[in-house]
Amino acid sequence: MTTLIFMSNSETTTVHVDLGQRSYDIAIVSGALASIAEQIGPWGERLGGWPTTGRKAAIVTDVNVQPHAEAVQHSLASDGWNTELIVIASGEQSKSLGVMSDLYDRMVAMQADRRTLVVAVGGGVVGDAAGFLAATYARGVPFVQVPTTLLADVDSSVGGKTGINHPQAKNLIGSFHQPLGVFIDTDALGTLPDREYRSGLAEVVKYGVILDAEFFAYLENNIDGLNDRDPEVLRYAIARSCRLKADVVEQDEYETTGLRAVLNYGHTFAHAYEALAGYGELLHGEAVAIGMVDASRLAERRGLVESSITQRQIDLLNAVGLPTTRPDTAAWSADDIIGRMKLDKKTLGGQLRFILPTQLGHVELFNDVPEDDVRAVL
Amino acid sequence: MTTLIFMSNSETTTVHVDLGQRSYDIAIVSGALASIAEQIGPWGERLGGWPTTGRKAAIVTDVNVQPHAEAVQHSLASDGWNTELIVIASGEQSKSLGVMSDLYDRMVAMQADRRTLVVAVGGGVVGDAAGFLAATYARGVPFVQVPTTLLADVDSSVGGKTGINHPQAKNLIGSFHQPLGVFIDTDALGTLPDREYRSGLAEVVKYGVILDAEFFAYLENNIDGLNDRDPEVLRYAIARSCRLKADVVEQDEYETTGLRAVLNYGHTFAHAYEALAGYGELLHGEAVAIGMVDASRLAERRGLVESSITQRQIDLLNAVGLPTTRPDTAAWSADDIIGRMKLDKKTLGGQLRFILPTQLGHVELFNDVPEDDVRAVL
Repeated sequence: MTTLIFMSNSETTTVHVDLGQRSYDIAIVSGALASIAEQIGPWGERLGGWPTTGRKAAIVTDVNVQPHAEAVQHSLASDGWNTELIVIASGEQSKSLGVMSDLYDRMVAMQADRRTLVVAVGGGVVGDAAGFLAATYARGVPFVQVPTTLLADVDSSVGGKTGINHPQAKNLIGSFHQPLGVFIDTDALGTLPDREYRSGLAEVVKYGVILDAEFFAYLENNIDGLNDRDPEVLRYAIARSCRLKADVVEQDEYETTGLRAVLNYGHTFAHAYEALAGYGELLHGEAVAIGMVDASRLAERRGLVESSITQRQIDLLNAVGLPTTRPDTAAWSADDIIGRMKLDKKTLGGQLRFILPTQLGHVELFNDVPEDDVRAVL
Repeated sequence: MTTLIFMSNSETTTVHVDLGQRSYDIAIVSGALASIAEQIGPWGERLGGWPTTGRKAAIVTDVNVQPHAEAVQHSLASDGWNTELIVIASGEQSKSLGVMSDLYDRMVAMQADRRTLVVAVGGGVVGDAAGFLAATYARGVPFVQVPTTLLADVDSSVGGKTGINHPQAKNLIGSFHQPLGVFIDTDALGTLPDREYRSGLAEVVKYGVILDAEFFAYLENNIDGLNDRDPEVLRYAIARSCRLKADVVEQDEYETTGLRAVLNYGHTFAHAYEALAGYGELLHGEAVAIGMVDASRLAERRGLVESSITQRQIDLLNAVGLPTTRPDTAAWSADDIIGRMKLDKKTLGGQLRFILPTQLGHVELFNDVPEDDVRAVL
């Protein structure tokens, strides 16, 4: 795996995602949202350049982060773009066909065409919905992501997944549509509620466990920086997380080879916990933190790792304020949990599948874990 | 351009569309719809093979051609597929978000997953809507087209365009999603109303004019076969049309280089006529037939071709029962027509653009046609 991160200067860290003709850059900055237009200009070269006149941008955001979107709008407008701000309700319910219908209407009203840029300013919901809009308006228009949550920074900014929910299944309707570029400003995290910020850190820790022991050690050595949202520590942690995810996605863009499965470490447990808690009660990252520890214990039981590996994860997760045991109030039986796991769409034919560590920085897929071992861990 | 058509035997003609990892075959047969499962089997190899158990197929069709869809269903069911027949209303109004919502519901109800095959049995409407379903369900599932109109055979079976309409713009919502294969049975055209069949022939004639003088001569020499829907003549004419369109699409898959524009010969006029007549009054192919003659006259006026080139088109189009002059009942002024042309989404900055022949079998894009010349032709 390639592991280069280009540090162009002390202020901008760039991660290049290599996907052939769909390659793009992730620019990571601190306090430079107001100059985003300078970055978007060169990104237009992949399209043969932006139109010299009549450049249009639809900026999609939600009410919670509208000020960030307005900063983006101001930067683009100053650079000669005709901009339209489209504000959707925050929350998962905006990932619906009804909201998509409104978004198409807004694009038609602004006479958007194939060269109109869609910019998503927000967390995963805004990115997924605006990305699906960009994927399907006029059979695909250019798309730039400006994630404003740590989870979106390190998860949805790499991979090209866009989509909305069906009433009976999350993310069921969607497509792969790679962005033209991703612009991450660590200052945007300043407005993120504490619990959501820490939830994002769970995925950062995950990248260390599954792919990079050295990065895990870096996180252990920079607890204060992480807790204080130190810009330099954040830029490095985000860049490294994106680079690690990009290494995986570059080899399995359309999720066909199974390689992307390693990214699901802790998630077999986590999805069951989220469902049992009721969506939203336990944040995704909180469930992942608990799930990673459970998966690591399962690996211990299977003789794959020493207990010290699990302990290091517990210590790091606790140090950044994440839970590592199921909530005291949760009276879930092992049967409840295993039953939920079997409903997971990633389960094949009732067989439980787990991503388990074999050492710090390396995980493998196991299809043959006996249910008794899972019970013992629970 | 490559011009090979592989004749595997007297019964099946295969056109290979070369789009790298998204390459696929168009199989053209006569009276073999009942054996479609034999063809779909090998097509699964592009996906690493079909699942050995639990293969599922959603067959999307409209009420007009349901018997053809039932033949497809029977063939697949006999070959061990779990099939679901989804029947939508015929007509352009089915290309809507509302119908898409129903289609997603049906897929969820049958517990469709990423390996579920979507088969479109019908004309352009069914192909476009089912194709968009396949493009966006679970971020993309395999798709097979079984066109049942001549227009769909020679137009929508090559190019990967899928999509639905916005109330204010046709085909505004969609994506590119190449099929796994296209299965064309000329016998399916047996149930096609005469006017619709002839309308499809206009696009066949178009391929001769824009790309292949020899094919044009073949059509001139096979008028009876075309009028009688002779299977052998149809297989050749459809295969040649698909091959010619594939030559263009292979070089401009995502419609970014402008090369695909040659396919719009006659269409600047045709779109204006369709709009002025009210959609559905003048069939698309009828409008294209008239539009090709007008474009050819415009080419004459610009000194690009002799009048004999226009006359050969008129003779061939009339011989297969297509109109070559605007309807007597249409009292459209030149201002009406030019006004409509300027509203066309392919117009850039109010400048009229025409694809004009420079010889039989070759056309070019002209951005600089004076409005007076257009008026003179009208």
